[in-house]
Amino acid sequence: MIVTDDDRLHEECGVFGIFGDNEAAEKAYLGLYALQHRGQESAGIASSDGEDVRLHKGLGLVWSVFSDPLTMPSLRGMAAIGHNRYSTKGASDLVNAQPISIECKAGKMAVAHNGTLTNALEFRRDMQDKGSIFQTTSDSEIILHLIARSQESAVEDMLRGGLKKIVGAYCFLLLTPDKLIAARDPHGFRPLSLGKIGNAYVVASESCAFDIIGAEYLRTIAPGEIVVIDSKGLTSLTLPPVQRKSFCIFEHIYFSRPDSFVFGEKVDKVRRSLGKQLAREAPVDADITISVPDSGNTAALGYARASGIKYEIGLIRNHYVGRTFIAPHQDKRKLDVKVKLNPVSGVLRDRRVVLIDDSIVRGTTMRQIVHLLRSKGAKEVHVRISSPPITCPCYYGIDISNKAELIASAQQVSDIQAYIEADSLAYLTIEGMLSTVQEPAQYCTACFDGKYPTPVPLEFDKYCF
Amino acid sequence: MIVTDDDRLHEECGVFGIFGDNEAAEKAYLGLYALQHRGQESAGIASSDGEDVRLHKGLGLVWSVFSDPLTMPSLRGMAAIGHNRYSTKGASDLVNAQPISIECKAGKMAVAHNGTLTNALEFRRDMQDKGSIFQTTSDSEIILHLIARSQESAVEDMLRGGLKKIVGAYCFLLLTPDKLIAARDPHGFRPLSLGKIGNAYVVASESCAFDIIGAEYLRTIAPGEIVVIDSKGLTSLTLPPVQRKSFCIFEHIYFSRPDSFVFGEKVDKVRRSLGKQLAREAPVDADITISVPDSGNTAALGYARASGIKYEIGLIRNHYVGRTFIAPHQDKRKLDVKVKLNPVSGVLRDRRVVLIDDSIVRGTTMRQIVHLLRSKGAKEVHVRISSPPITCPCYYGIDISNKAELIASAQQVSDIQAYIEADSLAYLTIEGMLSTVQEPAQYCTACFDGKYPTPVPLEFDKYCF
Amino acid sequence: MIVTDDDRLHEECGVFGIFGDNEAAEKAYLGLYALQHRGQESAGIASSDGEDVRLHKGLGLVWSVFSDPLTMPSLRGMAAIGHNRYSTKGASDLVNAQPISIECKAGKMAVAHNGTLTNALEFRRDMQDKGSIFQTTSDSEIILHLIARSQESAVEDMLRGGLKKIVGAYCFLLLTPDKLIAARDPHGFRPLSLGKIGNAYVVASESCAFDIIGAEYLRTIAPGEIVVIDSKGLTSLTLPPVQRKSFCIFEHIYFSRPDSFVFGEKVDKVRRSLGKQLAREAPVDADITISVPDSGNTAALGYARASGIKYEIGLIRNHYVGRTFIAPHQDKRKLDVKVKLNPVSGVLRDRRVVLIDDSIVRGTTMRQIVHLLRSKGAKEVHVRISSPPITCPCYYGIDISNKAELIASAQQVSDIQAYIEADSLAYLTIEGMLSTVQEPAQYCTACFDGKYPTPVPLEFDKYCF
Amino acid sequence: MIVTDDDRLHEECGVFGIFGDNEAAEKAYLGLYALQHRGQESAGIASSDGEDVRLHKGLGLVWSVFSDPLTMPSLRGMAAIGHNRYSTKGASDLVNAQPISIECKAGKMAVAHNGTLTNALEFRRDMQDKGSIFQTTSDSEIILHLIARSQESAVEDMLRGGLKKIVGAYCFLLLTPDKLIAARDPHGFRPLSLGKIGNAYVVASESCAFDIIGAEYLRTIAPGEIVVIDSKGLTSLTLPPVQRKSFCIFEHIYFSRPDSFVFGEKVDKVRRSLGKQLAREAPVDADITISVPDSGNTAALGYARASGIKYEIGLIRNHYVGRTFIAPHQDKRKLDVKVKLNPVSGVLRDRRVVLIDDSIVRGTTMRQIVHLLRSKGAKEVHVRISSPPITCPCYYGIDISNKAELIASAQQVSDIQAYIEADSLAYLTIEGMLSTVQEPAQYCTACFDGKYPTPVPLEFDKYCF
Repeated sequence: MIVTDDDRLHEECGVFGIFGDNEAAEKAYLGLYALQHRGQESAGIASSDGEDVRLHKGLGLVWSVFSDPLTMPSLRGMAAIGHNRYSTKGASDLVNAQPISIECKAGKMAVAHNGTLTNALEFRRDMQDKGSIFQTTSDSEIILHLIARSQESAVEDMLRGGLKKIVGAYCFLLLTPDKLIAARDPHGFRPLSLGKIGNAYVVASESCAFDIIGAEYLRTIAPGEIVVIDSKGLTSLTLPPVQRKSFCIFEHIYFSRPDSFVFGEKVDKVRRSLGKQLAREAPVDADITISVPDSGNTAALGYARASGIKYEIGLIRNHYVGRTFIAPHQDKRKLDVKVKLNPVSGVLRDRRVVLIDDSIVRGTTMRQIVHLLRSKGAKEVHVRISSPPITCPCYYGIDISNKAELIASAQQVSDIQAYIEADSLAYLTIEGMLSTVQEPAQYCTACFDGKYPTPVPLEFDKYCF
Repeated sequence: MIVTDDDRLHEECGVFGIFGDNEAAEKAYLGLYALQHRGQESAGIASSDGEDVRLHKGLGLVWSVFSDPLTMPSLRGMAAIGHNRYSTKGASDLVNAQPISIECKAGKMAVAHNGTLTNALEFRRDMQDKGSIFQTTSDSEIILHLIARSQESAVEDMLRGGLKKIVGAYCFLLLTPDKLIAARDPHGFRPLSLGKIGNAYVVASESCAFDIIGAEYLRTIAPGEIVVIDSKGLTSLTLPPVQRKSFCIFEHIYFSRPDSFVFGEKVDKVRRSLGKQLAREAPVDADITISVPDSGNTAALGYARASGIKYEIGLIRNHYVGRTFIAPHQDKRKLDVKVKLNPVSGVLRDRRVVLIDDSIVRGTTMRQIVHLLRSKGAKEVHVRISSPPITCPCYYGIDISNKAELIASAQQVSDIQAYIEADSLAYLTIEGMLSTVQEPAQYCTACFDGKYPTPVPLEFDKYCF
Repeated sequence: MIVTDDDRLHEECGVFGIFGDNEAAEKAYLGLYALQHRGQESAGIASSDGEDVRLHKGLGLVWSVFSDPLTMPSLRGMAAIGHNRYSTKGASDLVNAQPISIECKAGKMAVAHNGTLTNALEFRRDMQDKGSIFQTTSDSEIILHLIARSQESAVEDMLRGGLKKIVGAYCFLLLTPDKLIAARDPHGFRPLSLGKIGNAYVVASESCAFDIIGAEYLRTIAPGEIVVIDSKGLTSLTLPPVQRKSFCIFEHIYFSRPDSFVFGEKVDKVRRSLGKQLAREAPVDADITISVPDSGNTAALGYARASGIKYEIGLIRNHYVGRTFIAPHQDKRKLDVKVKLNPVSGVLRDRRVVLIDDSIVRGTTMRQIVHLLRSKGAKEVHVRISSPPITCPCYYGIDISNKAELIASAQQVSDIQAYIEADSLAYLTIEGMLSTVQEPAQYCTACFDGKYPTPVPLEFDKYCF
Repeated sequence: MIVTDDDRLHEECGVFGIFGDNEAAEKAYLGLYALQHRGQESAGIASSDGEDVRLHKGLGLVWSVFSDPLTMPSLRGMAAIGHNRYSTKGASDLVNAQPISIECKAGKMAVAHNGTLTNALEFRRDMQDKGSIFQTTSDSEIILHLIARSQESAVEDMLRGGLKKIVGAYCFLLLTPDKLIAARDPHGFRPLSLGKIGNAYVVASESCAFDIIGAEYLRTIAPGEIVVIDSKGLTSLTLPPVQRKSFCIFEHIYFSRPDSFVFGEKVDKVRRSLGKQLAREAPVDADITISVPDSGNTAALGYARASGIKYEIGLIRNHYVGRTFIAPHQDKRKLDVKVKLNPVSGVLRDRRVVLIDDSIVRGTTMRQIVHLLRSKGAKEVHVRISSPPITCPCYYGIDISNKAELIASAQQVSDIQAYIEADSLAYLTIEGMLSTVQEPAQYCTACFDGKYPTPVPLEFDKYCF
């Protein structure tokens, strides 16, 4: 079990689907491997062989959940969906692991879902009033109830009818014995791509899942698109459009792997542009550019390129970290940083350092890192963040559950600089950030400016965290 | 993980509930320990502290599921229910582990259930038609849906309304933040007892769960009774009565622990009487009486007493058995018996043996045992079974899913005797069996004579196994 | 992991060896299964294929140590030895697990050993003075050093030379690439039997290990005999005889399985005789005879037979017990007994009970059991022990490490009776006990009377526990 | 469990020692965390409290071996040594895990060792002839035997006497109840540094282990130096010098962490110089410089700096990799690379790429990587290796066991280029490599040129791999 970094944003999940391949479950397994960075708490695969839907899921990393050699062969069939769930701080929570497998009047099906609905609570209450029961806190279950109560006859119409009623962020995969359906919300908050391998179609949160199985990237599944794949091929339905698209800019800033296409753009290219723009907006007189590995690497390269301040490897990440034994007297947070990151004194000694990271959440970790750099002789530490200050909670699938945890929600940049004890601190501007993507108007910036593209849920925390 | 004995009847589960005790979850844990013989596949406990309902469950034996030292302390509150599920032959099936925890319009609740409904399929279909979704194959979920769709306001009335509609075998525990409700079906198929410890009430499948926590046995919960326990005390509701009670005689023959009270009788006393009656009905000229341990021990004592043929320990059971490595060339079934049971040659050599067991399912194991006894010198082996031949499937919570697996469904006693290669074979008569209990008319004998006390489900196998 | 019963005597181990069988390791595995009662802490198998010696061992029960499906197939060859080690109270201690595999001038070899040397400390010191290093606290290592320092050329002569020097209890198996050697100490403290299956010879602590693989019992390996088995067959060497044999009577009383031959006698027969003799020596006016299961069962049958007081099952043992969660406020010892044993009130109520067990160590458990019986209505509880009071430590392989733990070392029977709160208490006399075996003069009675058949080690505790 | 990369060189281990600290074992634990890259197969810590030596070790990563919360607190005392062992390809091999704990005439002690002796086999034979037994294949055991047979009285003299006789590579830690002794071989093959924290001394393979606990780096332990630390402080003994020092240049090229001091130099600085020198020796007309992460990162930065070809992140490493399920039809090697590394098409498409790695062993992985890069559009792939071709086995602690596995031992660079299907391939020259360190004459280059600084062992493979 890999330890979570408490002072980081977390994506809720990664999804993968495939239809028409003899080794559907095996490819789903590899796809989840490639999407592991999107969630480490639990993993699951449901497969379908035309008659039945089988499911295996468990707590832990993909390789561990499927380590029993009998598991994968049991997931028979030509179609499969898979899901990685992000790592919460709390105890194991298998009940919320996905895919969820159910039976309803439309038959057997399994679903996997990435995102968060903003009118989930209303629907939960309404459906409970109508007599539904909820076994999880997952929004997937709401969508399932909408399907189950639909008057339509085809499952895709049932789903479409249900999705029309809900608002929020979702990429939703539904597997029946003979169909794979993939839907993306009309705002398009979360990414979902379509690919092909042989005669099989594949869908995944990020295109890196196509690469690992050798599938070809075809295109992004459009906001509001419902793709239905069965033995006759692929058809496409649409949901009513919304006024403005709302792609999550944090997919480029941090969540997605740099080798992925997301929202039709190359992540590593956007991420490098963020660093370049940051160099233009917040130059500094320094000797070296370093990053907080691995998340800050690409932006740091961009910053170094644009600023001319050479890129160095100033922090080494330890990748063998698990649940660390903490002695009673030790300061857990300090130790966590030291166990994970080691400063390279040869690089830092007597240098004026620009330190690049993608974001600051609470600030506690950054404070430790600045301290570490100084302890190895860094003369100055200038922190540059390749995104604007996060001031507002996200209701669309990122675990920023309350303002109190966000240092930038209450403090000015100068206060934060003082807190983390940096010689200077600068964030990217919202405009600068948006200048790095091709269609800036289609991105959500709510966590920076509070301009939520949907009505804000009233009692958000209650059910979702 | 303890290996299952494929050639045995299996009970579906054991349930335990407690309300009003500071260590509710700990007592539930001990109660499940005592009820472990009723199910070894999975175990779970839900606790309630007046506001919330917490749940932990997992695959394996009770001690293993709760072995993490942080688990038990997390199950806070004054009330708890627990459940042991029986060991299926297939792979791990956590989705069907109980208790099941849900939220519906009546709020949060957890349920645990022992038994099988005979009109489950109709209800599943009907509820699916009405828009419900099913995440498990457990009948508990049907009852939950009935509650969730009820128009009543008190949860006990919701439950009562639901239970009125269903037919079959169930002992059902329901835990809300502030109530514990226990219901037993009007036929009374499965046992459920009420006890008290301090100011707390306890309910359990068998009274042995009271002994381990030092609780006092009060009485059997009546067929058709719904007991509601909350901070004000205990109240009792009733369900419409059925014509005839249908206690499961196999609780006395095999399932329950001999130190339990079940259906108001001492199990070990009934079990000894079965052996005595068997001796009267099927005497034989022999030197020693032995049993298949541990299930046949008590009946064998009774047989020995009544027949005057002295009781000996002729077979030793190995209690350290787990998943045995079976080499490719080995005969799994033969090895299973040899790994579990070892004949005592000093007892058997040149002796004419009466071998007592509680039942024969497929006959394969008994055939091996007879062979084992002869290999150690037994001169004659006379098999005596302390119940009648099982000829029909059970629809009330025992996993006799189809007739084909029951040797007695198609073969005469003489054929079975030939198959198991015994010198003689005799079963108890139905009348003889019933003569050992105080109220013979209240027992179900359907698995022996096919006289089912409820309508027989049409497609039983489909959902239940 | 099965919990140990702190208030019990523990054997040190069980050993098994086989030479000349295509499935040597598999048969060793089954043999260890049958010998699991002799040790539950660790298990191991070494195999030999004529060229190399392979080893796998681990902490836990046999089935668990060898549960990885790749393990057994890796133990190739025609010969194998196996070992079960008893369960200590402390933490895991893999370094002392056996077999131990070494290389010395005689080549590669693996050894497994049951027993304790009484001059171990002298030898350790002497060998350390000569430059040897010790990696374990096992006496096996001393014997290995003696082999390694021998001037002989054949490994059996090396072993014989070494064994001539040591004193104490041992059954010792040595596996080389092409030989299996089995030695039993001249006093014959521990049992070791020889058997045959096909062309292969087998040796084992108890004959029950032969039964499980279908091997034929040939004979006891004589005290002081060294059996050498290789491709040419079996030859026998001898060690210088001692004045008096010293078989461990506790093998009959408690350690060995009743279905085994041990010291040329049927254990269950001796054990039943112990019960009969106890009835003659310590009669009591009572209604029923019950036993502490499973160890007291056979003696209780004998007591019942001789006394005419009918045998009943008054205590049920729970076989699903593992590491039990103990809440902070709970009394561990009381709970342990309640978790493991449940009294059958139907049997006990208003009865005068004779309770048979094989021995009393500290008395704490027996006190709890007497209390349990009374709590279920037993009118009188008369405790009868099928062995004499244990007053002295054992230096020959049983973990009675110091007198302070033995209640009978300092207290009279009447005091013990008062402590355990029994209505009466009687032990078997030494004479009575010895009357049950064919050659009473060949048994060791040191733990009862302090008449040690060898010089007593000076600093016994230091290295052995 | 982290999967090993079969096509990589592997260091044998990392060692850590501390004396005089209240939290000795905890600091050893953290030190091992920092040294985890030197060995992932097993980990262990021995601690000493002035009277006894305690040990815990196991298979797996440090965090996993010590994950039971009871383990660390049991390792009491003011002194401790720890060891990480590298990951072999074979099955678990706990018997060779270190530290090894023994008792001999010098008392109790534990040892940990990094390196390989070249006259090990002679000593094993000689000592076996003298009557010693070997339980492991570790060279540590030879040193222990030399200590055990010494005529000296102080343990440091015993050790010194023993070390005088042996030849080869070793850093050796010895812990007694009241001393910590650290020795480095006269050639100085492996690095060993001395540090201080408070009043405690620490020793470690690399200085990164000092950083994690906040210890100060003092100096390198000199080749041939024996450091003895006890309550009176630190004293230093010396071994007879050798003609020429032989530091392992691969510590700079690959093994050590870039944030460590090793052989008195900053690893990341040497590594960057290797890249720069490579750029001078083997320039190429290309668009981007990329590395095989993470091992090639620093050299790639150097190459980019010196060549002016900009550094990009062209391959992403997946750090969530464990034992991957491989379907029967899959090509394990191809899959391994794809699971671990993903090419970034945005960086690679239509680019002429310089790919930097530290070394090539078999060439199979590099061939896959070149293929991966081309599959994402790389127009040209020029492979540059920051070390010379490895043509000879290493006898000093790296697992290059036989020539047949080294592609450069039999093939010319042009052939290797053809095999890996690169557009060009160049290695660093030996001279160029040595130009990057301050004292080139003190380094061993045997794996490149076969000039072994010690006599070559005759039967090397037999015992060591």
